[in-house]
Order: sequence, then C-alpha cells, then structure tokens
Amino acid sequence: MSDSTSSTPSLKDELDIVIPTIRNLDFLEMWGPFFQQYHLIIVQDGDPSKTIKVPDGFDYELYNRNDINKILGPKANCISFKDSACRCFGYMVSKKKYIFTIDDDCFVAKDPTGKEINALEQHIKNLLTPSTPFFFNTLYDPYRDGTDFVRGYPFSLREGVPTAVSHGLWLNIPDYDAPTQLVKPLERNTRFVDAVMTVPKGTLFPMCGMNLAFNRELIGPAMYFGLMGDGQPIGRYDDMWAGWCTKVICDHLGWGIKTGLPYIWHSKASNPFVNLKKEYKGIYWQEELIPFFQSVALPKDCTTVQKCYIELSKQVKAKLGKVDDYFNKLADAMVTWIEAWDELNPSTGLPNGSVK
Amino acid sequence: MSDSTSSTPSLKDELDIVIPTIRNLDFLEMWGPFFQQYHLIIVQDGDPSKTIKVPDGFDYELYNRNDINKILGPKANCISFKDSACRCFGYMVSKKKYIFTIDDDCFVAKDPTGKEINALEQHIKNLLTPSTPFFFNTLYDPYRDGTDFVRGYPFSLREGVPTAVSHGLWLNIPDYDAPTQLVKPLERNTRFVDAVMTVPKGTLFPMCGMNLAFNRELIGPAMYFGLMGDGQPIGRYDDMWAGWCTKVICDHLGWGIKTGLPYIWHSKASNPFVNLKKEYKGIYWQEELIPFFQSVALPKDCTTVQKCYIELSKQVKAKLGKVDDYFNKLADAMVTWIEAWDELNPSTGLPNGSVK
Repeated sequence: MSDSTSSTPSLKDELDIVIPTIRNLDFLEMWGPFFQQYHLIIVQDGDPSKTIKVPDGFDYELYNRNDINKILGPKANCISFKDSACRCFGYMVSKKKYIFTIDDDCFVAKDPTGKEINALEQHIKNLLTPSTPFFFNTLYDPYRDGTDFVRGYPFSLREGVPTAVSHGLWLNIPDYDAPTQLVKPLERNTRFVDAVMTVPKGTLFPMCGMNLAFNRELIGPAMYFGLMGDGQPIGRYDDMWAGWCTKVICDHLGWGIKTGLPYIWHSKASNPFVNLKKEYKGIYWQEELIPFFQSVALPKDCTTVQKCYIELSKQVKAKLGKVDDYFNKLADAMVTWIEAWDELNPSTGLPNGSVK
Repeated sequence: MSDSTSSTPSLKDELDIVIPTIRNLDFLEMWGPFFQQYHLIIVQDGDPSKTIKVPDGFDYELYNRNDINKILGPKANCISFKDSACRCFGYMVSKKKYIFTIDDDCFVAKDPTGKEINALEQHIKNLLTPSTPFFFNTLYDPYRDGTDFVRGYPFSLREGVPTAVSHGLWLNIPDYDAPTQLVKPLERNTRFVDAVMTVPKGTLFPMCGMNLAFNRELIGPAMYFGLMGDGQPIGRYDDMWAGWCTKVICDHLGWGIKTGLPYIWHSKASNPFVNLKKEYKGIYWQEELIPFFQSVALPKDCTTVQKCYIELSKQVKAKLGKVDDYFNKLADAMVTWIEAWDELNPSTGLPNGSVK
C-alpha cells in the first residue's frame, strides 16, 4: 500500500533477541552488524556450571537453570530443561514490546542478488504493518512497497488488523520432521520465495521457533513452548504447540500472523534418529491435536490473551487428557506459565487494545 | 514431494484454450511455440459481423454472438454480451477435461533468469498435483521438486486432495480495481514470487480470469462468469463471482484451488474511468457478497457441482435478492447456465468421483 520506499525503524530499545543455547555463541559473530545494537537474552540450557562464551561487542543477559529456578521458584517446573523450549523463559523476563528469537545454528542468508539479508529488519517490517487474515490477497502482502490489494478485495477489509507474529523461513536445511529427514537426507531448500503473507483466519500452520518474531505486548503470554525434553515424553513439538495456541488466540482476538520473508541460513540438520525418538509420540498425538485446535471455540468473555490461554488449558485437559496423561500435566503447566508471566509482568493482562 | 525432475505431460488432447476477444488475435503470435499444439476456442464478443483474424498455425473454432444464440436458443440470455464474461460459453462447448483461459492482452513473461515462462506447462503441473487446503505448509506447494511438508504437518493430510483450479498471476500491469488504478497509475508488478500455494479451506480469494486454468470435468459447471456488460448494472466482477462460487463449492466437495505461478505479462492497463463506471456497484455490493459467501453452507446431499450450484442460486435469490433485483436475475441465470451446461454435456453431473 505504501507508495514511498519506507525506512524501517530499528526498534533498538523496544526489542530483545532471545537465544536458547548449550554452547558458545560463535554464530553471533556473523550477526554482529545486525544484532549489536540490540539487547540479547540468552537462555542457557543443560548443565548450568558450563560457561557459555559470547563474542565481544554484544549486550546481553544470560540465564541458566539455576537462575530460572531462583526467579520462578516452584513455578520453574513449567520451563522445559534439556530442550530449546526453555527459550520461552526469555520471553517472560523481557521487558520489551517485541521479541526476535533465533537458533544458534542459524546464519545470515543471502538474497538472490548475493546481498546479506537483514532478517531482523524484515521481521520488524512484518510486525509494524497490518495483517489480512479475513481474505486472501493474490499478490501477497498488500502493504509491501510496489504492491497493493487486487481487484475484488473488499474495501472494508483493507485496513487490516494488528500483526502479532512474523514467522521467517530457512534456506539450506529445511525444517523437516525425522521421517522426512530420513527419506530425503540430501534435500536442501534453495528456493528464495520473495513473499510475505498472512496465514488466513481459521487455518493452522506449523510455527517453527528457529527464526521467529512477535509482538510480546500483544501475544506474549500465548508463546509458551510447553513441556519438552528432560522427563517428558516428547520433544520438537514446542514451537508447534506454541504456534497452534497462538493461532487460535489470534483468530479469536482478531490479530494476524505473517509468514514468509525473512530467510536465515540454517546450517546443520539435526540427527534424524535422535529426532525420531523425540518426535514419534508427537507425530501420533498430532493427529488428535490438529482436529482439537481446528475446533477450539473461545468464549466471548475471553478478552485478554491470559484469559484465552487459561480457557485453552481447560479445554486441553478436558479433551486431550484422555489421549495421554501428558496433556493433563501440560494443561497444568499452561496455568503455571500464565501465573509466572503475570508475576513477572504485573502490568499486562489488560483487556485487548489497552495493552499498549 | 517428488524427488525426480518430473516431466510434465502436455495434455494436448485433453485441454482447450479459451480466449474471449473483440479484436484480431495478433497476441497469439508470441504464444505460438506454447499454444500451437492445442485446440483454441475463441469467443468473439461484440459485433458478430466483424471478422477476427487469427494468426496462421493455430487450430481453432470461433463462436460469435449469432453462434451462441443459435446453439443455446433462449438459454443464450445467460451468456453476457459486450463483456469478457462471455468466455464461459467456451467452457461449456469444450469437450476436454481441462481448460486454460487467457486474455488477449497477455503476453509471455520472463522469469528472473530471462527465460520465457511456459505458463500452460506450470498450470498443468499445478492441476496434476494435489492441493492442501486443510493445513498451511510454510514452504508452499509441498509437491514441487525440492520441497516437502515441513515438521508439524499432520501425516494424515499429506496425500492432499484433487486440484480443481490453478490461478496464475501477472507481471507488469497488476490486476487492480479502478480506485487503485486511479490512485497508483504508475504502479507495475515487478516482483516474481517463485511460489504456488493452496488457498486454505474457508478462505475466499479474488479469482482473476486473465490467466486461469481448471479441471473442467471436476468444477466446470461452477465456472459461470455471471451477467455482466450489455444491459447489466455491473462489469469486471465476472471472474470474481465465478471465483467465490467455485471456492465455496470446492470447499464443500473437498477439492483445492492453487494460486501463484505461472506469471504472464499483462501489457496494458484498461481505462480506469471506464472501469470505475463498470465497477462501482460491484464495489458497493461486494461488501454484502463477501459475508454471504463466507457464511454459505451447502447441504450434504449436494454431491455434484450442479447440485451445489443450483442450491447456491437459491441462496443468492433468498439472501442477495434484497440487496438489488439484479441478484434475482443473476440467480435465474445461474439456473439457466446449469440447464444449458447439462444439455451440452449430457454425460456429466454424476456424483463426485465418478465424474471421470
């Protein structure tokens, strides 16, 4: 819609970068020019006695498991251990309006002209322009320079709605499940698709946590990455769970989720045999989870993300508890998560629209 | 999903190209290498005494208004005059399984490497591979070479469903409505988005008739372009109307619609002042049409496209007749269209799945 080449604000005082890791953060060196003006929240997974080295020049705070336990006390049990799901602790302790989260095996990708892609700048563009979940625009994001709403797009819907989430993609190693990794070990994503689009209302999508940004003030409390890893029967469904919860809540509250640009370069495929072990129950349970999320209805009086999330936890217990007892534990953890969120963020939880 | 570089069948004996026109078809010269093996159905609009010149080397049949009146008799009143909506007559007289329709101001586009795009080949690829309307795949069409379903995509949905429609896009002149044309007279579409995707179930989209292919055996009877042009209060909503009807019927019958590649080169913007006159009632009515189509429910016993379409015509009359008497006329024309279709195509109208 915009006619001029718009300059994107950096939001340097309004955005935190959250990185879950178990190793030295050498990957940050390549991101220096893009990340050094931002504050980093590093969530150290695994052995807290290990020292994580962070390259010079970055402004960061780091939390290990001891810190999480100290800050949350008994509520720390809602934060996963030995799984990158622990990253959601970083969302909770942030005080900023926006979050960008990235995995430590993700590097700067190049566009087809060979130019390095400023992923964060594109995420900010996505978040600061509206979404269009109620009707499909065939020329993709209508707010991008050089494009607009096409003929036949209702005028009453052209203002769009606030964007809650920007879901970025990956060149090189695609985000495949273990069975697909096993079947196609050599497949690489080389296709640069120059598009951003809104995931339509009522449609679920697989949200990957590798390259993800969101408006924390709008949707933060729904970005819980669940119970994964140590002591839990599944892994690698943390971001999926957050994505399904977030999507139904955004649909209910009238907010949008965009996917597409920016790309990052995903360097290394994780071990498909290990992944299969983590995933197999999820692959099976998912066939019940998707119909559940497709049919979730949130009552009208759920006017805040917190209220929506608590209601969702009740429905998880009522309808998924019989699939496996894990979902009863997860439903309880969802409640704990919201309690912990509200403790650390006492000013949020206001009705919709007054969140700012 | 496919691992090998698949060769696309030409379908030369199973596909007709439908072109509505009022002028000599010089534009076909550029399409020679791509279209000459196919049969063309040319629907001549306007003055039937005018001779339309077709370049040498094309196999075609041509119908003018006199032919339409002769073939359809009194039912010819469902076919628009002085509007490219007349093209749907070509769908009706075709005996082929697939249709590709293109406007006479559309030329061969080039991909970013400078290679001429074989639009028809891409449409055929889109139509011959399944659609995925029930869940969004973030890496776009999972059946394309070099890509697949991503982590978190339910395995039970990976077989997809039959593809009924392939909606292609346009480089150069974008398909804007008159108000947008007036506001942005110089905007050109220069962005080549290398993607095909399924429009999700439950989501409406603006279907443009400029560069469109479909499985006529599956969805043909829904591809009615309505009453436009001469004697009618609106124009330029013919393809939109067909798109909304087609989408709700595909959603009901469990078929998919893809949009994205291929691009054609749209050479000339139509006159925005003339367009505004044609469109202005549509722009206004559309605000009632969209909620109507978003809430249409077709009963279970509507198991063929014809039954769905007749049911839709009843709902149009019941719910849109009060918006304007035009919709009563249109509802009647929808019934006439189906009667004419069944007369010319006596073997179709079988239940779903036995249509082949």
